[in-house]
Amino acid sequence: MPNLRVPGPTPCPEDVLEAVGGQMINHRGPEFKEIITRAHGRLQQVFATKNDVLIMTTSGTGGMEAAVVNVLSPGDKVLNVSVGVFGDRFAQIAERYGATVIKLSSPLGQAADPAAVRKALQANPDVKAVTVTHNETSTGVTNDLEAIAKVVKSEFGKLLVVDAISSLGCIPLLTDAWSCDVVATASQKGFMIPPGLAFISVSPAAWQAAEKNTTPRFYFDFARHKSYYQRGQTPWTPAVSIMYGLDLSLDKMLKEGMTNVYARHARIGRQVREGAKALGLQLLPADERYASNTVTAVRVPAGVEGAKLTGLLRQEHGVVVAGGQGPLEGKIIRIGHMGYVSEADIQDVLTALKASLTKLGFKTSAVPTS
Amino acid sequence: MPNLRVPGPTPCPEDVLEAVGGQMINHRGPEFKEIITRAHGRLQQVFATKNDVLIMTTSGTGGMEAAVVNVLSPGDKVLNVSVGVFGDRFAQIAERYGATVIKLSSPLGQAADPAAVRKALQANPDVKAVTVTHNETSTGVTNDLEAIAKVVKSEFGKLLVVDAISSLGCIPLLTDAWSCDVVATASQKGFMIPPGLAFISVSPAAWQAAEKNTTPRFYFDFARHKSYYQRGQTPWTPAVSIMYGLDLSLDKMLKEGMTNVYARHARIGRQVREGAKALGLQLLPADERYASNTVTAVRVPAGVEGAKLTGLLRQEHGVVVAGGQGPLEGKIIRIGHMGYVSEADIQDVLTALKASLTKLGFKTSAVPTS
Repeated sequence: MPNLRVPGPTPCPEDVLEAVGGQMINHRGPEFKEIITRAHGRLQQVFATKNDVLIMTTSGTGGMEAAVVNVLSPGDKVLNVSVGVFGDRFAQIAERYGATVIKLSSPLGQAADPAAVRKALQANPDVKAVTVTHNETSTGVTNDLEAIAKVVKSEFGKLLVVDAISSLGCIPLLTDAWSCDVVATASQKGFMIPPGLAFISVSPAAWQAAEKNTTPRFYFDFARHKSYYQRGQTPWTPAVSIMYGLDLSLDKMLKEGMTNVYARHARIGRQVREGAKALGLQLLPADERYASNTVTAVRVPAGVEGAKLTGLLRQEHGVVVAGGQGPLEGKIIRIGHMGYVSEADIQDVLTALKASLTKLGFKTSAVPTS
Repeated sequence: MPNLRVPGPTPCPEDVLEAVGGQMINHRGPEFKEIITRAHGRLQQVFATKNDVLIMTTSGTGGMEAAVVNVLSPGDKVLNVSVGVFGDRFAQIAERYGATVIKLSSPLGQAADPAAVRKALQANPDVKAVTVTHNETSTGVTNDLEAIAKVVKSEFGKLLVVDAISSLGCIPLLTDAWSCDVVATASQKGFMIPPGLAFISVSPAAWQAAEKNTTPRFYFDFARHKSYYQRGQTPWTPAVSIMYGLDLSLDKMLKEGMTNVYARHARIGRQVREGAKALGLQLLPADERYASNTVTAVRVPAGVEGAKLTGLLRQEHGVVVAGGQGPLEGKIIRIGHMGYVSEADIQDVLTALKASLTKLGFKTSAVPTS
C-alpha cells in the first residue's frame, strides 16, 4: 500500500473503510436519522460551536461556493484575504456570483497580516464580509485566524467566512470563541474519511444574511438544508457511504480528544519540518511560525527537477506527495500530514526523500530518527 | 439484511461495496486517471452517446441544477414537462435561476402527452429548451421520451434537457439516436453504486448554449469539468470511493449487456405489477403502458393506513419501501426495482405485502409465484 502524502484525499483507517463499504439504507428512514443526528452533535464538538453544522454532498470547493452564495448578494463588497491558490479560489467564486471583491493577497509562502486586514477594512467601511483561508494547502501556510477574527469581528463587526478545509479537525479552530460566521470544511482531510461531504457551520448573523440574500441557489441553499436538519435528513440524497465513515471517524476523533489530535498534528508538523531541514532543504514559508501542521511545502533544491523528485518518490518508494500549483509548479513539493498520520509515516517519507534526492544528485544531510 | 426497495439509494452488489471501501489514492495521479478515463468511455456506452459524459460529485438534484445553470440564462423561456415531484423540481430550479418557466403538467399517475408538448411549443415559439423527466419516481410513470424528443428536436429544434435519474441504465434511453442534449443521472439508481456522483452528457448544441450562458456558476460549471476531462481528472476533489464502485459496476452492466439489463428491468417491472394486481391492489398509473419498470406506485387500498403498511413491511418483514410524496402522502406506496434487483427480491416483497395487508384487514388474493 503506498504512503499517500498528498494534502487530500488522505488515507483512511481500515475500520473506517470497512464502514464506508456498508450496504445502502433508506436515507429517509430511522437508521439514517440516527447516524446524521449523531453526526450533527459531534460535528458541533469538533467545530467548537453551538451553530448548526450542515452536511452537504460535495467537495470542499462546493462548501466554499455554498458559503458565498448564501452570504453574499450580487454587488456586495467582500474582502478576500488570500495567501495562495485556495484563497484566490474564494475570490473567483465570489466574483463569479457578482460580488465586488477587494483582494488582499500576500506573497506566496507568507501568512496574512492582521494589521493589513485592519487597514483594508478601514479603507473599505462598506465591506459586508471577509473571506479567509485558515490553512493554505498550496503554500503550507497557516494564517493566524484568531488574530484576524479579532480584527474582523471585534473591531469591525463584519461577517467572517472561513475556508477551514485543510485545518478543521487538525489545527485548533474555535468557531464560537473566535466568532466565525461560516466555517466550511470537507471530509477528505482531517476527518480521515473519503471525499464527498462538506461540513459548514452557520452563525445566527450568517443566517440573517442568508435570509436577505438574493443570489440564486438551490442545491447549496442553507435554508433547504436547515429545513431537513431537524428531522434528521438532508434535502437531497446524501453520500450515505461517506456518512458511515463519518460516524466512525467522529467517534475516533472525540475518543482521541481534540486537544490530543491538535497536539499530534503539531508534533508531526514539527517532525516534517525538522526532518526536511536536516536534509538540507528549505521550507517555503518564510516565517516558520506560520508553517502549517497539516501540509508542508518544501522548496525543490536547485539542480533538481520537481517532477522527477515526485516521480522517484512514488515509483521507487511508494511515497505519494504533491507538486506545486500555478507559479509554484516544479518549485516545491507538498507533503500532506493531516488526519490519519503517524510519526512512522513521516519517517518513511523522510527516508524516501533522502534516497530520491541523493539519486538526483543533491547532497543531503543525515535523516534524524525521531 | 433488509430488502431495500425504495427508489434509491438501491442495494449494491457485495463486490461493489468491497470496491467502495478501497483505500484513497491521489485524485491527480495516474491510477485515478486510469479509472476515470475508463469510466468516461463506458458511460458513453451506457448513455448510447458520443457526447462527453461529465462526472460530478453531487446528488441527482445537483445534476439537474448543473443542467439548468449551464443551459439556461436568466430570462430564457423553458417548457417544463412535469408529471410529478421531480418534474416540478426542474421547474423550481429553473425559476430559482431566473428562467421563465412554462409549465405543462399532467395529472398524477399520467404520462406526458407528446401532442400537448407540440401544442405548447407552437404557442411558445420563443422557448429555448424543454425539460423532461424520463421516469418520474414520485408516481411510477415513464414518459415516452422518444416520442417527446421527436417533437422537441425534429419538429421544433429546441434544446432537450432530460432528467434520467431513475431511468438511465435500466430503461432504454438512446441519447444520440433521440438527440437528447443534456441527460443527467445519478449513481444510486441503475448503476448499483452508492449516492455521491452525477453523470451528465452534453451535446454540441448544449455546449454552444453553455458557452453563451450568463447564469453564474462555478462548482457545476460544464466548461471547468470539460477542461479537466481530457487529462483524466475532475476540477474538484471527486468522491473517489464511489468512483471505485462505478469502475466495477460499469463492468458488470456492460458484461450483462444493456439489452439484457433493459429486458431484466422490463421482466421485473411486469412481475411487480402483476403481483400487486393479483393481490387485489391498484396501480397509480392510469395507463399501464406508462407504468415504470424501475419503480411501481401502488395505491394504498381503502381502509388501510399507508404509514402502517410501510411500517409493518419494514418491522416485520425487513422490506423497506417508500410512501407517497406531497399530495400522494399516505395514498400510495412505492416499490423500487432498479439496478441490483432479481425476481426473488420481488417475490419477497409480494409475500410481505400480502401478509401485511392481511394483518391490516385487507382481503388479498393469493400471491402468484413467478
